Amino acid sequence: MLTKSPIATDVAIIGAGPVGLFAVFELGLLDMKAHLIDILDKPGGQCAELYPEKPIYDIPALPVVTGQELTDRLLEQIAPFQPTFHYGHMVERLERLPEGGFRLGTDQGLEIEAKVVVIAAGGGSFQPKRPPIAGIEDYEGKSVFYAVRRMEEFRDRDVVIVGGGDSALDWTLNLQPLARRVTLIHRRDAFRAAPDSVKKMRALVEAGKMDFMLGQVSTLTGSDGELSAITVRADDKSETLISCDRLLPFFGLTMKLGPVANWGLNLDENLIPVDTEKFETSEPGIFAIGDINTYPGKLKLILSGFHEAALMAQAAHRIVYPEKRLVFQYTTSSTSLQKKLGVAG
Amino acid sequence: MLTKSPIATDVAIIGAGPVGLFAVFELGLLDMKAHLIDILDKPGGQCAELYPEKPIYDIPALPVVTGQELTDRLLEQIAPFQPTFHYGHMVERLERLPEGGFRLGTDQGLEIEAKVVVIAAGGGSFQPKRPPIAGIEDYEGKSVFYAVRRMEEFRDRDVVIVGGGDSALDWTLNLQPLARRVTLIHRRDAFRAAPDSVKKMRALVEAGKMDFMLGQVSTLTGSDGELSAITVRADDKSETLISCDRLLPFFGLTMKLGPVANWGLNLDENLIPVDTEKFETSEPGIFAIGDINTYPGKLKLILSGFHEAALMAQAAHRIVYPEKRLVFQYTTSSTSLQKKLGVAG
Repeated sequence: MLTKSPIATDVAIIGAGPVGLFAVFELGLLDMKAHLIDILDKPGGQCAELYPEKPIYDIPALPVVTGQELTDRLLEQIAPFQPTFHYGHMVERLERLPEGGFRLGTDQGLEIEAKVVVIAAGGGSFQPKRPPIAGIEDYEGKSVFYAVRRMEEFRDRDVVIVGGGDSALDWTLNLQPLARRVTLIHRRDAFRAAPDSVKKMRALVEAGKMDFMLGQVSTLTGSDGELSAITVRADDKSETLISCDRLLPFFGLTMKLGPVANWGLNLDENLIPVDTEKFETSEPGIFAIGDINTYPGKLKLILSGFHEAALMAQAAHRIVYPEKRLVFQYTTSSTSLQKKLGVAG
Repeated sequence: MLTKSPIATDVAIIGAGPVGLFAVFELGLLDMKAHLIDILDKPGGQCAELYPEKPIYDIPALPVVTGQELTDRLLEQIAPFQPTFHYGHMVERLERLPEGGFRLGTDQGLEIEAKVVVIAAGGGSFQPKRPPIAGIEDYEGKSVFYAVRRMEEFRDRDVVIVGGGDSALDWTLNLQPLARRVTLIHRRDAFRAAPDSVKKMRALVEAGKMDFMLGQVSTLTGSDGELSAITVRADDKSETLISCDRLLPFFGLTMKLGPVANWGLNLDENLIPVDTEKFETSEPGIFAIGDINTYPGKLKLILSGFHEAALMAQAAHRIVYPEKRLVFQYTTSSTSLQKKLGVAG
């Protein structure tokens, strides 16, 4: 983890799902620059992570659109405003600065200073599911990892990867040339991963370049957070000890509110209450839009998040540009807005 | 005007602009049937009437869309719910029925009974601009018309049409075969109409089948609302008397709040105040969505009207189906919603 000198921006948007993306558009029309931080490694949030190929039918004027298409369309729409994306970061700290504005810190050591913070975190943070192995917490971040941030961490290591999905298979293939030995463990001999990846993995096993084992990890052995071996239990209850110093369990993602709970905001059952004029939280200058907020009548619809982003942007403008009077304009008729969009005739 | 027996429906939507159209979708997902009434002769409201070809840039996930395309996309999206459209009608009366629900009456004699009324009338009613001719009100509806409702009204009449736009030219060409004589009057020899229509009109003039005059109508002659002649003043102040018994001035449309002002709703400077939970007016069961409503933070954005339609539909459901508990569902995952949309696998 490196602590860099902080990035300065007008608005920090936590969450790059559809609502966070559209917020860039509404802020951009009003001359505010945005940085987006997302725990996932790509934009689109739930839409892109949970149902990239599934059709959505209730986005106005898009009779059918997949989560991925919606994301791509929004990225095209906000491109003129050149937002900066920080993927694979979880915002852990959010502090108000004495001179005004906020400072955000991520788990990857990124520091951002912003005049306005917009929480567009949907159902919260996607976090890896922890496998049910006693004492695994003690190893997390030292020898047990739920994501590969830096491949070098695994060079010349005895790596055990657990799981049968794309993450497990992809990292098996990516780390195999680098690690001393890779062992893939899955509870059955069938995979939810791309057939081509499975084929490549099986070829490596046949060539003696890695191992595949059926079973489940039952116990961890090690000390001070450093793993030395794991025990794998097969269906017939037989147990095998495997020495290893890195474990990568890929058990899928679960949604948690995450660090938002620690930022001193009023919460209502893991949701953030906001007003319906500015969609501001109990903390002035911190807004919450999309599925993470609540107010009377709230529906967790993407189209509602779009509306919330538009009204939030007006309120953010009063904070970022306290001296400027805002004149409401339409993209259809305003040459000044069209210039910002790069479409002025 | 014919008074028909009333049509019964769940929801009457006043205004078939983009927000009124999308309301059909949100109501339809919750099993409510809708009739739409619009003063224009087509759907799309301002979008289709004022800027059908002009690009709009701020509809989420549609980086560029014209008013006409937006309308067409919404019509496609709501098609599964088979709404009924009543074009060319202005809702004049809106009364609460003693047994619950409402009765609406239009200027064309249409009567609709609905459990819920949704006012999605944008800037109000598009109404024809009245030309500045003294006493013209006395002739309106009898011998002076601002729209052609029934062509038979003009058969074997001496018809004077005034204007230089598409409406004036189109009706000149349409009524010429039917009328005894058509005279087109325009203040200059240049037109804002389709060049092909202008060419056809000039050909008819050359063939002696109609007349074209430069000038402006200065006075009307007649009695009891029946016109007998008009005076046309040319640029050089010379005046010509033309006998005629029908006058059709096409001076464009203007937006007025219209009869909405007489329905007993609280108003705030020609806007209808609503809450932000249900978007209901001061009259229970009457909702207002889109540009015609107002609330703290209100922005006259189409995307806000979409959000308002979604929340309104939840509240309307409680009126139309007081016994049913509503379970919130997503189009992406609910087979029951997908069946309604005709897309269930």
